[in-house]
Amino acid sequence: MYTVIFEADTRAGRLFDQWLIAIILLSVAMVVVDSVQGLGDNYKRAFTAMEWLFTVAFTVEYVARLVCVRHPMRYALSFFGIIDLLALLPTYVALLVPEVHALIDVRVLRLLRVFRVFKLTAYVAEYQALGRALAASRRKILVFLSAVLMIVLVMGTVMYVVEGPGNGFSSIPTSVYWAITTMTTVGFGDITPKTDLGRLIASMMMLLGWGTLAVPTGIVTAEISAARFAHAPPPTTRTCHECLTEGHAPEAQFCMHCGARLPAYQTGTATL
Amino acid sequence: MYTVIFEADTRAGRLFDQWLIAIILLSVAMVVVDSVQGLGDNYKRAFTAMEWLFTVAFTVEYVARLVCVRHPMRYALSFFGIIDLLALLPTYVALLVPEVHALIDVRVLRLLRVFRVFKLTAYVAEYQALGRALAASRRKILVFLSAVLMIVLVMGTVMYVVEGPGNGFSSIPTSVYWAITTMTTVGFGDITPKTDLGRLIASMMMLLGWGTLAVPTGIVTAEISAARFAHAPPPTTRTCHECLTEGHAPEAQFCMHCGARLPAYQTGTATL
Amino acid sequence: MYTVIFEADTRAGRLFDQWLIAIILLSVAMVVVDSVQGLGDNYKRAFTAMEWLFTVAFTVEYVARLVCVRHPMRYALSFFGIIDLLALLPTYVALLVPEVHALIDVRVLRLLRVFRVFKLTAYVAEYQALGRALAASRRKILVFLSAVLMIVLVMGTVMYVVEGPGNGFSSIPTSVYWAITTMTTVGFGDITPKTDLGRLIASMMMLLGWGTLAVPTGIVTAEISAARFAHAPPPTTRTCHECLTEGHAPEAQFCMHCGARLPAYQTGTATL
Amino acid sequence: MYTVIFEADTRAGRLFDQWLIAIILLSVAMVVVDSVQGLGDNYKRAFTAMEWLFTVAFTVEYVARLVCVRHPMRYALSFFGIIDLLALLPTYVALLVPEVHALIDVRVLRLLRVFRVFKLTAYVAEYQALGRALAASRRKILVFLSAVLMIVLVMGTVMYVVEGPGNGFSSIPTSVYWAITTMTTVGFGDITPKTDLGRLIASMMMLLGWGTLAVPTGIVTAEISAARFAHAPPPTTRTCHECLTEGHAPEAQFCMHCGARLPAYQTGTATL
Repeated sequence: MYTVIFEADTRAGRLFDQWLIAIILLSVAMVVVDSVQGLGDNYKRAFTAMEWLFTVAFTVEYVARLVCVRHPMRYALSFFGIIDLLALLPTYVALLVPEVHALIDVRVLRLLRVFRVFKLTAYVAEYQALGRALAASRRKILVFLSAVLMIVLVMGTVMYVVEGPGNGFSSIPTSVYWAITTMTTVGFGDITPKTDLGRLIASMMMLLGWGTLAVPTGIVTAEISAARFAHAPPPTTRTCHECLTEGHAPEAQFCMHCGARLPAYQTGTATL
Repeated sequence: MYTVIFEADTRAGRLFDQWLIAIILLSVAMVVVDSVQGLGDNYKRAFTAMEWLFTVAFTVEYVARLVCVRHPMRYALSFFGIIDLLALLPTYVALLVPEVHALIDVRVLRLLRVFRVFKLTAYVAEYQALGRALAASRRKILVFLSAVLMIVLVMGTVMYVVEGPGNGFSSIPTSVYWAITTMTTVGFGDITPKTDLGRLIASMMMLLGWGTLAVPTGIVTAEISAARFAHAPPPTTRTCHECLTEGHAPEAQFCMHCGARLPAYQTGTATL
Repeated sequence: MYTVIFEADTRAGRLFDQWLIAIILLSVAMVVVDSVQGLGDNYKRAFTAMEWLFTVAFTVEYVARLVCVRHPMRYALSFFGIIDLLALLPTYVALLVPEVHALIDVRVLRLLRVFRVFKLTAYVAEYQALGRALAASRRKILVFLSAVLMIVLVMGTVMYVVEGPGNGFSSIPTSVYWAITTMTTVGFGDITPKTDLGRLIASMMMLLGWGTLAVPTGIVTAEISAARFAHAPPPTTRTCHECLTEGHAPEAQFCMHCGARLPAYQTGTATL
Repeated sequence: MYTVIFEADTRAGRLFDQWLIAIILLSVAMVVVDSVQGLGDNYKRAFTAMEWLFTVAFTVEYVARLVCVRHPMRYALSFFGIIDLLALLPTYVALLVPEVHALIDVRVLRLLRVFRVFKLTAYVAEYQALGRALAASRRKILVFLSAVLMIVLVMGTVMYVVEGPGNGFSSIPTSVYWAITTMTTVGFGDITPKTDLGRLIASMMMLLGWGTLAVPTGIVTAEISAARFAHAPPPTTRTCHECLTEGHAPEAQFCMHCGARLPAYQTGTATL
């Protein structure tokens, strides 16, 4: 049973995982269709029925995972364990609070498994590469965020004072929301400065915002570039047995320093 | 005939290609003008006539290409072959569904030939450079997109639950559309959060979105930088006089292929 | 007393700083809550009272800092000194102009101390790293800004002439505000071109704007990458046993300062 | 006279240039103030008078430049010559077409001289650095623009067909304008898709747009990084006279390979 549920290498395991994915997609699709006005109305009963079916299925599966794994707690606290729980909870919350019933489709998160199922190891590698790049710049981004939060709080207050509730800046939280909208260059336009002073400040904020938000891009880019260069297969792995010179090109047959024949070279793959 | 149609090097060939481009531009311009209210009305008949003329011309040309090429199938499936077909189809679709008639101007895609016609090889090189950079980051971008799609689906659902149809988040697809608008920092503002909780979530999404969307920039930048550095004078400028192998490292003293002593090396300057 | 106020290393000092932070957060929170309609109304009196309490507290603290430091002027003009003053002024301005009373929460700026208090030296390092990157690109960004300002002034005027007050471009300052909104890709949409010519110009501005605003990103990214590579294991880990000079290259065999033979070198791992 | 007008090094020259800048700023300020409703009304007459004064002054100056320079044509066609002309023309156009009178403030372009006047050579260097970076990526950006233009034309047409005039996509040019607004992530929101299909296409465009527009950022960043690294003083310029090893650090006094004393080192300055 453990093999079936957890290992995607056995035939049974893959079949199981594929069914799982199909069901997840189906249940998510159902929720989406259901949310579209008039579209899902005449299938309401069918939907509710299937919804229950799926809920039971997922619950059983989750319990099964907990049961057949050696350390239930460790699994429950593992990345996928938490995802599974996250995907399950809304279903039950929905029983108590029907209107949040749409949240059921956080189940889509479980599709993160899809990479494992289809053995897209290369993609997993990419995922991890991106993950590392972001993790490596974690602290920088935290620091950056703290700075941005202070800026938007101050700027939001300034705008609240300058424009006032009359022009839509009805409270400091609202102004802060506007400030974030502006500095991230999203610019919904539901709230906009009307006074000349307000527009002057807003203009400065936009330019400032661009400068400021160039920083995360810079951080991430630097990380990715670094990772990228780090992955390039270094030619320095080949050493001449005569003069011990290193740094021969992969296709080299003779030492470029002393002319001695080099041992055969087996290629290493550049995964990035 | 083959030469005329396919090769841009002969006088006849270039003339043919230039006429082709002129006609394409003209027909596209016509469609554009036609779409502007009141502007093209009094030329309706003339337009329709020329439209037919062009359609015939392009059809003939396409058939001619198919006929005079050695492997019709291979051409039909080649990049330019597909472009040509794509540019031709709407014309006939328009016969059946008149209102999509404007689609005729996907013909503009055929202008991709323009680079070949005017021998802008340097530009073609640039095109390829950009193409390679994008191709190289293909997988990363796919992975990134899959992650973004999950995020927007979940966030969209959350906003649909929080704001509800009353505030414009009329269905999950609509909310997802809004989530994409927000995370890409486009921010149309046709749909905006009204509740405080919604605005809080939206604010976090924007900051998250900026962080997230810094990733493709980072990926592409890293690729381009790498490509750019790859342009630095390749060591291939040194040739062994014995075996004519190229690609010796600047510090090489012996041919890495046959072991013969290499002539002294004088550095060249890097150019982009 | 000096120790208590300025040094975060002693127990008393930390306690003092932590209290300070708590009070700052509390007073800021109060201002925010107060700004939300209806929310803070029934606590108005309490708020005003506490507001005064805090004001007195902060004033006392500021004076205390001035008194017990050796060079009051130098402190007053130091970075934190100015922050403290900035955080204090609005309180008194608010006495004269009650409606700007919300500005009191620029106090949040004082939280910059938080990094020192909690000994988040690593984060401080990050802060400084970002600071250096921005400082290093200071001049470039100034030059860039001056160029952008000229562009937006000219473009703003052009749009003012093309669209005119009738379409919301009521004056040149307003048009410039719009131009900035557009070039920074914020795009509020409170003012938009209506005429075809205006839209053509706007379209060119957007593309131009993207090109232009890619520059600060480029600048900052270049700086950060450079800083990041500078982090690559510094050769400064090797010290000559004779003259104690540091900073020898990994491949060095002799001290570059006194010529003494260096001990063998074992590589260290790069860390960001 | 030549010296006074063209050289900023002599006392008279600087004085002249500074007066020029003052007048330019004044005349621009006037136009701006004039454009603000009600603000400049009561000074209308004064403004018109000064406007004429300035116009005459600038004309005289321009003629003077033409007269006292050795090769009038060459000056007229030089960068600054064209700027000067550009800054002068609108004044006369304004005589014929009063409503474009605001264009007079393209005079602000003349402030480009400001850098020369105040001897901000360092900044000029920065300007040139940025200029080179942009120039170097000129072709790439052109190619990129041509691609973007085709995409927006096609996407614009598609949206025109999908949404139709009913939803604001009143003509293909308008739709293209919308497409550009969307792909540059400006997102005014004056025109937005209403149909579900339209929103689906728009969503894809946004993601595509982000990917696409990451390219210019990447190009510029790569250029700037390259320029930046190119400026770092390479330590490889020092060679040991004994063993001819290269790559000694600037502060090295002994060869790190054989321990022989190195010749004194004269620093090269890093201008970036």
